[in-house]
Amino acid sequence: MAKSRFRQTKKRKPVIDALARSILAGNTRTAARVLSLIENRDPLANEVMKHLYSRTGRAGVVGITGSAGSGKSTLIDRMTEELRRRKKAVGILTIDPTSPFTGGALLGDRVRMRGHFLDKSVFIRSLATRGGHDGLSGCLCAAVQVLDAMGKDYVLIETIGIGQDQIGIAGLADTVLVIVTPESGDEVQGLKAGILEIADLLVINKADRPGAEELFLNLGNLLGDHGVSTFKTSATKNEGVGALIDGIEKHRAECVASGNHRQRSLDISRAQVLASVRDQLMVKVQRKLGEREIAHWAQQIADKTVDPYTAAEKIVGKMGL
Amino acid sequence: MAKSRFRQTKKRKPVIDALARSILAGNTRTAARVLSLIENRDPLANEVMKHLYSRTGRAGVVGITGSAGSGKSTLIDRMTEELRRRKKAVGILTIDPTSPFTGGALLGDRVRMRGHFLDKSVFIRSLATRGGHDGLSGCLCAAVQVLDAMGKDYVLIETIGIGQDQIGIAGLADTVLVIVTPESGDEVQGLKAGILEIADLLVINKADRPGAEELFLNLGNLLGDHGVSTFKTSATKNEGVGALIDGIEKHRAECVASGNHRQRSLDISRAQVLASVRDQLMVKVQRKLGEREIAHWAQQIADKTVDPYTAAEKIVGKMGL
Repeated sequence: MAKSRFRQTKKRKPVIDALARSILAGNTRTAARVLSLIENRDPLANEVMKHLYSRTGRAGVVGITGSAGSGKSTLIDRMTEELRRRKKAVGILTIDPTSPFTGGALLGDRVRMRGHFLDKSVFIRSLATRGGHDGLSGCLCAAVQVLDAMGKDYVLIETIGIGQDQIGIAGLADTVLVIVTPESGDEVQGLKAGILEIADLLVINKADRPGAEELFLNLGNLLGDHGVSTFKTSATKNEGVGALIDGIEKHRAECVASGNHRQRSLDISRAQVLASVRDQLMVKVQRKLGEREIAHWAQQIADKTVDPYTAAEKIVGKMGL
Repeated sequence: MAKSRFRQTKKRKPVIDALARSILAGNTRTAARVLSLIENRDPLANEVMKHLYSRTGRAGVVGITGSAGSGKSTLIDRMTEELRRRKKAVGILTIDPTSPFTGGALLGDRVRMRGHFLDKSVFIRSLATRGGHDGLSGCLCAAVQVLDAMGKDYVLIETIGIGQDQIGIAGLADTVLVIVTPESGDEVQGLKAGILEIADLLVINKADRPGAEELFLNLGNLLGDHGVSTFKTSATKNEGVGALIDGIEKHRAECVASGNHRQRSLDISRAQVLASVRDQLMVKVQRKLGEREIAHWAQQIADKTVDPYTAAEKIVGKMGL
């Protein structure tokens, strides 16, 4: 780390300590502030995370994915109600790679979840994946750890996508729920392999609609053979949610017992340290090269005097690594 | 580059030359094969790209984005028909970050576009963004360049998301179309800022439905003030598509005249060389560290003996950069 940045960090030490202490005390405003630092890739975020890291690893992380219109948000709302009845503190992260098209949808979710906004034990936050970031997962991983360090028993991650980066939702969550509906039945038939690849639990939401029972029997048998349990819920009627939460708790307990949880934690640690090495190296390289030389290479590449791969080899060669 | 890999590349030189020549000759099978190499991050892909790079930069790259149900695929189908009438060769790349949920949808698109499958001048390919990749854009950028080198006059990129990486679709395309429909009217009102941020042209598709005229007047005025032209299309009725293609050609010509095209090309070159530096550095670092040491760090991080940021600082420090 360059001296200037080190000095800056030194000077900021009381700030960092205060932020970390406040998060460990469960302060919602501080958590929101640190999540913004993470989103903005402020170096201060890493310093705060260093303080928090040893206090993470306790929360159950649940990834919830499914196509638009599958009723994810309403189901998450119901799941949160059920978890609160069980005296669990809940953190919710909403991710949508289709931003900027989600501004409206997120606003809608917030209105729907307004009951929980008054509940101090529920923390809700949406993470944008707007351009300019080099992948979401580093941010997402740190965001989960902030909520974990705050003392949330469960962190629910809502996403319409997977696999944005090395640690996709399937790598980050202890339990991945895939939500389908009777309406998506035909589509689901062609997607069994894809669902199997990431789902720990399959949820057939809108189970009061026609075709739900058929889908349940059809998928239940197939997925059951692969160790994926199938649940039926009707989020709007608040049916089947208790059984789903039981299923999530059971799955987590099994993961811990089987050693899968330990392996996942190792995989996340590996990806997180390599991502941080990558980020730090790129800061160093860009500082060492200087903006003028980078611009010079870009110019030559744009002029087709050199291709980007050969240019990169030359730059890496100069780094003496 | 390590000796072993260098030797491997040397030995492969005739293969690389042949692949590059075949793409420059417009061979569809070879293009598909090289796109697979790119998706799989095979080092051979970079070697082929080195040969192709000087022959890129001619195609018009059009990004097409909009929420699910906006009729993107049908519109792209119609746009392709119109471009073919104008004797333009067309490449289509379909991207969907919600994979694996798109298997069905993509299959549907393919069936819909089957007319074009028999047309040698239309190349259609879907790019998966499954887990394991560290961001799509490096791949996407190279994929566009393959189609460009093949001699496609237009490369149409269909995506439901933006900003997956440093070069999002807005950075990569010469012209970005945002598709909305009268049904998404209310939503659109809240998203004007987001649309303005990325759109070069706004397309109101399903323009035969109620509310289209109101949306057109409403958005047209506002966006016009910001230099975004608004178009009305009905893809199913094949209306307004010719005017849209005219609009795309006009926009591209304006970009070249104003120097925006040159600036975009510089930005892409900069992002591409830095992404390649990053990838090459990480290969070197992982080789230098060795899998055993990486596993050792992951273990310590999982055990909370050290946090990932401090571990990364130590690793970077050892690299003597």
